[in-house]
Amino acid sequence: MVIGGDAAGMSAASQARRLKGASELEIVVFERGRFASYSACGIPYWVGGDVRERDALIARTPEEHRARDIDVRMRTEVTEIDVAGGRVRARDLDAGTESWTDYDKLVIATGARPIRPPLPGIDAAGVHGVQTLDDGQALIDTLEGTEGKRAVVVGAGYIGVEMAEALIKRGYDVTMVQRGPEPMSTMDPDMGALVRDAMCGMGIEVVSNAEVTEIRTDEQGRVGAVVADGVEYPADVVVLGIGVQPDTALARAAGLPLGEYGGLLTDLAMRVRGHENIWAGGDCVEVLDLVSGRERHIALGTHANKHGQIIGADVGGGYATFPGVVGTAVSKVCDLEVARTGLREKDARASGLQFVTVTVESTSRAGYYPDAASMTVKMLAERRTGRLLGVQIVGREGAGKRVDIAAVALTARMTVEQMTALDLGYAPPFSPVWDPVLVAARKAVSAVRERG
Amino acid sequence: MVIGGDAAGMSAASQARRLKGASELEIVVFERGRFASYSACGIPYWVGGDVRERDALIARTPEEHRARDIDVRMRTEVTEIDVAGGRVRARDLDAGTESWTDYDKLVIATGARPIRPPLPGIDAAGVHGVQTLDDGQALIDTLEGTEGKRAVVVGAGYIGVEMAEALIKRGYDVTMVQRGPEPMSTMDPDMGALVRDAMCGMGIEVVSNAEVTEIRTDEQGRVGAVVADGVEYPADVVVLGIGVQPDTALARAAGLPLGEYGGLLTDLAMRVRGHENIWAGGDCVEVLDLVSGRERHIALGTHANKHGQIIGADVGGGYATFPGVVGTAVSKVCDLEVARTGLREKDARASGLQFVTVTVESTSRAGYYPDAASMTVKMLAERRTGRLLGVQIVGREGAGKRVDIAAVALTARMTVEQMTALDLGYAPPFSPVWDPVLVAARKAVSAVRERG
Repeated sequence: MVIGGDAAGMSAASQARRLKGASELEIVVFERGRFASYSACGIPYWVGGDVRERDALIARTPEEHRARDIDVRMRTEVTEIDVAGGRVRARDLDAGTESWTDYDKLVIATGARPIRPPLPGIDAAGVHGVQTLDDGQALIDTLEGTEGKRAVVVGAGYIGVEMAEALIKRGYDVTMVQRGPEPMSTMDPDMGALVRDAMCGMGIEVVSNAEVTEIRTDEQGRVGAVVADGVEYPADVVVLGIGVQPDTALARAAGLPLGEYGGLLTDLAMRVRGHENIWAGGDCVEVLDLVSGRERHIALGTHANKHGQIIGADVGGGYATFPGVVGTAVSKVCDLEVARTGLREKDARASGLQFVTVTVESTSRAGYYPDAASMTVKMLAERRTGRLLGVQIVGREGAGKRVDIAAVALTARMTVEQMTALDLGYAPPFSPVWDPVLVAARKAVSAVRERG
Repeated sequence: MVIGGDAAGMSAASQARRLKGASELEIVVFERGRFASYSACGIPYWVGGDVRERDALIARTPEEHRARDIDVRMRTEVTEIDVAGGRVRARDLDAGTESWTDYDKLVIATGARPIRPPLPGIDAAGVHGVQTLDDGQALIDTLEGTEGKRAVVVGAGYIGVEMAEALIKRGYDVTMVQRGPEPMSTMDPDMGALVRDAMCGMGIEVVSNAEVTEIRTDEQGRVGAVVADGVEYPADVVVLGIGVQPDTALARAAGLPLGEYGGLLTDLAMRVRGHENIWAGGDCVEVLDLVSGRERHIALGTHANKHGQIIGADVGGGYATFPGVVGTAVSKVCDLEVARTGLREKDARASGLQFVTVTVESTSRAGYYPDAASMTVKMLAERRTGRLLGVQIVGREGAGKRVDIAAVALTARMTVEQMTALDLGYAPPFSPVWDPVLVAARKAVSAVRERG
């Protein structure tokens, strides 16, 4: 039995089915929404019009799953997990009926939900989160039914900046209001400042260090403005991009172990700790950060898919483990690419690490080659040992995926000195003769030596 | 004293100068050509017109080096190294005079030269190699002084395919004649076939399995045609892209140790083996292949620059080593990106390794995202251990630099199973939810298991 029919849940179901036929294993999936197996990460591009059809985001329909002997029950919300009894209670949202179903093995893939601070007006018409395909459809319906062209995005994380781009593409005047000093708090503020500058250059108004206190509505209860620190920002539509939190109310009520961020805690095979027959994966779990050695909550489709594969393997009699993450993320706002992996300065400090930081400017291609785009690379290395701790990159085309070099190096626990010798692909259309990541590594080697 | 004033030689000189001032260390560089410190890798793009000015390829002029107390002597060819006497004999090519100069420390950075098979007509006007900036200028002079628009490229390695693109851009009809079964013999033939198909689609005629026996000339001694296996391919210009070999005639005559491919053999600090006061780097040395454990000859600017840094550090009293390479290379023909790292099938066999191969098709971005380009990834993994042995990629935009993921994984001696858990950057504009390299790794894990 699987609770939640998106990336982690359906990957687990599909992988288990590959390993065990219908006569050996019965698979039931409860999904409260109207869609299963879709790319939530694609929603901003659908809203922005890069992706034309909603169905393009759907990897596999419920019917296709059913044709492979996976009993997907849509619009069915699980309301209680009875761990001792080995059963869940589920409500058919259309019929309004509830019933208990027994399980031998349970997979919890309930995902995450957008943070909705309890502000006046937060539930007004025209205020949207964008976590599910249903959310995306609701936002598009609002955008298509609204005359005004003023949008306020609250929050400046990945979803916030991606939604800002989407709204710009739809012809909106976009104001981004956020609590932090700079956009993209997953980056250090000095790198976030580069993102802010670029966003301003795209015509996005960025309001920082601002606490939203109210969402004002008109007499019909529709959103009219966002109020932050006493300033009113008119809004025909509001998008919440404050972040997400694990959707673990069911798990909490069932007494399952949750971590510091409210996510389920699992072992390496994605079994819920202390429970032989319950697995969890995707946006509802915490994952081990291999660099800091601590659990984190990272809602990202690529992890959810990996979790699903591993759960499905275990359930189906195979074997695989999820060793953890290094915290890699890449995003873009229009033509600006933003990427990070490993620890920020504050993460490193919070982990008790002493470190040096270096920042270099370089280009995506040889400087003399057409369209060589500038790129800023920041690198953190541990004091004394010189071990790589993190990399952040802001640049144009060709910048973002360079973070993968650092992601693999972090996984292999390389030092910055070892990195300077990396044999990376070089030709003038692809890189300067010293790849920007190597330039940063060389500078980090000097910084480690100087710091002592 | 440095012999050769391009990437390795001038990097060594500059790095040594950074560490030791003019009062501590005198630096003399002999360069037989008219240019120093230029990007030889950029020549095809200059010929093709992507780079407008020759001088854009020059990182630093002789005058700039002299301003930093590096005595660069241009058009001065070293004709003999007297190791026992600690001196070299050099000829001033303009004055025609020769003289001996003593050294305390010698850096050999004589580079590589294009292979010119001893064919009838090989020295005819209109037949060009493209190794040095002087060569590039000579080719451009020929192209600009020639009416006809038929070009034959002999050889189909990186330089060959890059020159084919350059000539296409200049409006030539290009025929590529090569000995091997497929272009890009640095790739396995099945991947080379993808390159051939794409080149044919660009209007390049590719003649494979063909041995060039003669270059026919007209009555003025100008090139008229290339003859291969009895077939005559008319040519107004011929470019040799057969490959290069280490330019080590001086070193050989001086009794310095050369390897299987004719390159100088060094220790980890780039000192010529058995010689405390002689270093060598760049295209004239052989390098350790970390995957096969054997020496190889790889002429590539990025290695030459690294060698120069390491030599300069050692000469200047610093410390660094060059651990070796994994054989990463990336190139493009028009919009086709071609990349490889590690071992091909035949390398693996020659190393005594047993292995599995897998090939997958994927895309550079999420399938639903605009401009998602198809990509073929081939992966080799060792039988039993599952250790990654090599990756080859052919695709469009976004394909080539993905090879860096594998380059770092090879350096870290990862298994394909470890690779499946890599935390690579994911967002729909940058990657499918499973990066193509991860898709290949997953398939390789299965192949290793099945093979047993």
